[in-house]
Amino acid sequence: MTKVTPWDVEGKIDYDKLIREFGVQKITTSLIDKINKIAGKNNFMLDRKIFFAHRDLEFALKEHEKDNLFLYTGCGPSGSIHLGHAMVWKFTKWLQDVLDVDLWFQFTDDEKFLFKDKSFEEIQELMKDNMLDVIALGFNPKKTHFLIDTKHASIMYPEAIKVAKKLTASSIKSCFGLGDSDNVGMFFYTAMQAVPAFLPSILKKKKMACLIPHAIDQDPHFRLTRDILPKLGFFKPASIQCSFLPPLTGVEGKMSSSGDAFIALTDTPEQVKKKINKYAFSGGQDTLEEHRKRGGNPDIDISFQYLRFLFEPDDKKLSKIKSDYRTGKLLSGELKKILIDKINDFLKHHQAEREKAKKKVDQFVLKI
Amino acid sequence: MTKVTPWDVEGKIDYDKLIREFGVQKITTSLIDKINKIAGKNNFMLDRKIFFAHRDLEFALKEHEKDNLFLYTGCGPSGSIHLGHAMVWKFTKWLQDVLDVDLWFQFTDDEKFLFKDKSFEEIQELMKDNMLDVIALGFNPKKTHFLIDTKHASIMYPEAIKVAKKLTASSIKSCFGLGDSDNVGMFFYTAMQAVPAFLPSILKKKKMACLIPHAIDQDPHFRLTRDILPKLGFFKPASIQCSFLPPLTGVEGKMSSSGDAFIALTDTPEQVKKKINKYAFSGGQDTLEEHRKRGGNPDIDISFQYLRFLFEPDDKKLSKIKSDYRTGKLLSGELKKILIDKINDFLKHHQAEREKAKKKVDQFVLKI
Repeated sequence: MTKVTPWDVEGKIDYDKLIREFGVQKITTSLIDKINKIAGKNNFMLDRKIFFAHRDLEFALKEHEKDNLFLYTGCGPSGSIHLGHAMVWKFTKWLQDVLDVDLWFQFTDDEKFLFKDKSFEEIQELMKDNMLDVIALGFNPKKTHFLIDTKHASIMYPEAIKVAKKLTASSIKSCFGLGDSDNVGMFFYTAMQAVPAFLPSILKKKKMACLIPHAIDQDPHFRLTRDILPKLGFFKPASIQCSFLPPLTGVEGKMSSSGDAFIALTDTPEQVKKKINKYAFSGGQDTLEEHRKRGGNPDIDISFQYLRFLFEPDDKKLSKIKSDYRTGKLLSGELKKILIDKINDFLKHHQAEREKAKKKVDQFVLKI
Repeated sequence: MTKVTPWDVEGKIDYDKLIREFGVQKITTSLIDKINKIAGKNNFMLDRKIFFAHRDLEFALKEHEKDNLFLYTGCGPSGSIHLGHAMVWKFTKWLQDVLDVDLWFQFTDDEKFLFKDKSFEEIQELMKDNMLDVIALGFNPKKTHFLIDTKHASIMYPEAIKVAKKLTASSIKSCFGLGDSDNVGMFFYTAMQAVPAFLPSILKKKKMACLIPHAIDQDPHFRLTRDILPKLGFFKPASIQCSFLPPLTGVEGKMSSSGDAFIALTDTPEQVKKKINKYAFSGGQDTLEEHRKRGGNPDIDISFQYLRFLFEPDDKKLSKIKSDYRTGKLLSGELKKILIDKINDFLKHHQAEREKAKKKVDQFVLKI
C-alpha cells in the first residue's frame, strides 16, 4: 500500500497521482528555462525532474525580480542527517546562491519532541548535531537564519496563535489523519510550521513572497498555511517540491534514519562501503554470466538511482553508466564501487566542513 | 440551568454540589485555624467561606514551613478589571504578605486571543491596562513576577510542549467541552496555563510546592495539570478556591466585564453611584412602608453581598447592617449608599495607585 503523509512515506509512489491528489503543478520545461535564465546555469535536479512539482513558482520568480523573495526550509531533528536531507538542502543552497536571497531555516524541535518517543534533551542534542550538517553544506551565513521553534518561541508563538486561531481541530484531523487520542501539541504544531512563511515579512515590515523547497510529503502542512496566510494579510507561500530519495533497500518509500538502510552524513568510508555493498538494492542479475548476457535494470537499482539523484551531475556520464549497466558491460559490484567512491568523496569534504561548522553555529542562529 | 466552566458561569450555583463534582475539599475550621496561626491574624474571606474549597492546601502549608512554596495566579486580559478579579487578587496579596513568598502572576494573552473575538493588538492593549490594576493592588514588586504567555514564550513554550505531549485531544474535549470545530490553539492552551505551576521549580532548580488561589471555575485547568505534573517530576499544584462575586443584577452567575452590570476598577464615583443605583439587585420591598414592615432579604441583596464579599471586613458592622436590613430599619437606598461610599473610597485609593503603577511595570515583568 502506498502512503504519503508528512510522517510516513511507504510503498511505490505514483508521482503523477500525487500531483493530482495534492493539487500541485508539474514543473514544465518552460518554467525550468525561466529558472535557468535567472540562474545563468542549469541544475540537474530540475533537468531530471527530481524537483518536479510546485505551487506558485512563477509568482515567486516574479517577486524575486522585485527583490521581494525569501526561501524557507527546515529540519526536524529526530536522528542523523542522511542523503535524503542533503538532496533537498543542496538544491536549496543552489537556489539561495543563484537567487541571492535570505534563507530561513527552521529547526522543528517541538515537532519531533511531540511526535517521537524521545526526550526533550535527546531532541536538543540531535538538533545541535544536525545544525553542523546544515552549516557544512555551505549556506551563506550572512543570508541564512536558523529559527529554532523552542528557542525562538517568543517571536514565533505570538504569530503561531494567529494561525492557530484559524485552524480547526477537524481540519488538522482530515489533513494529517490525527485523532482524539493524539496529543494536543501535535494538533497545534502545524501553526508553528507556518510561521517562517510570513515572519520575515513582519521583521522586514513588507509583504514578501516565500518559496519553500521541500519533499512533496510535507505539502499538507503548507496547503493549510496557504489557506490561512492571506487571511492574515500575507502571500500564500510558493513551493518547489521534490520526489523522495529512496532507502538503500529499494525504490519504494523514502530514506529515513531509522534502521540501517540509510547513509548518514557522519558515516565513515568503511560504513558507507559496507552499507552500500550489503543493503543497496541491485537491479543486476543473479550471476555474472546472466548479467553479462541480459544486463541490469537501472530503474530499480539503488546505486544507479543515487547517482541520478545526487552524485553524478554530468548527464553524459550518467547516461553512459546507464547504458553500460543495461547492456551488462557494467557489473553491479562495479556500479556500487562508483557510488561508494562518489559518496565518500562527498563525505570527506562534508565532514571536514562539519568540523569547522562547530565554530560557526552562532553566525547562523537568529539573534533575539 | 447552572453552568460552571472556565469560560462560562451561569445560573444558581450549588457550591456543595460543585465540591462533590469537582472532587475538591471543603476548607475546614481547623484548616482556617492553621492558616490564621501562620498568618498571625485572620482573614474575613476565609472566615466567611468566600474562599471555601481547596486541593492539597495542608501539603502546601507544610512545604511553606520548609520555605519551599510559591503562589501562582493569573489574569486573562479580555476586558476591564472588575471587583470579581479584585476579590481573588486581594486575597492573593494577603496570602503573599502573610506567607512572605514569591507570586507568579500569569497574563494569558494567548488564551484570550484564541477564545475571544478580539485582535491580538486589542488583547495587548487590554493586558497593559490590566497590569496597572494588578500592580495598584499593592503586590510586593520584589516577590511578584509577571509571566506573559506570548512575551515569555521562549521559556514557557518549551515547557508547555512537555505538558502537551501528555495531554490528548479527547481529555481536553471531555474536560472543557471543546469540539472539532474549535481552533487548535484552544486545544493547546491549557498546556501553557500549566507552566507557571512548575516553572519556578525549574528556575530555582528545586522541586517546589505551588499554591494557586483562584475562583472555582478555573479548577478544570488545574485538574489536568495535577494529573500531568507528577509525570514530569513536579508536585501536583495545590489550590485555594473561592466562590463567585455575583454580577450587579443578582446572586446567580459571576461578575463579568461584558455588558454594564459590573464595577470596573477604573469607574468614576459617578459611574459607581449610577451602576449601583440602577443595576444592583435589591432584596428590599417594593414600597417604603412594606420595607419598614417586612424588612429586606440580605441573602439576595447584591449591595449587602458585596459588603460581605469585599467591602465590610468587620464582622460586627456587617452583622449590624444585616439585621438592620432584615428588620426594615435600613432601607435599600441607604444600604446602596453604604456600598457606594465603600466602593468609591476603595477606588479613589486604587486609582491613585494605578497612576503610580504606570512607572512600575518594568519592576514586575519577568526579565528574560
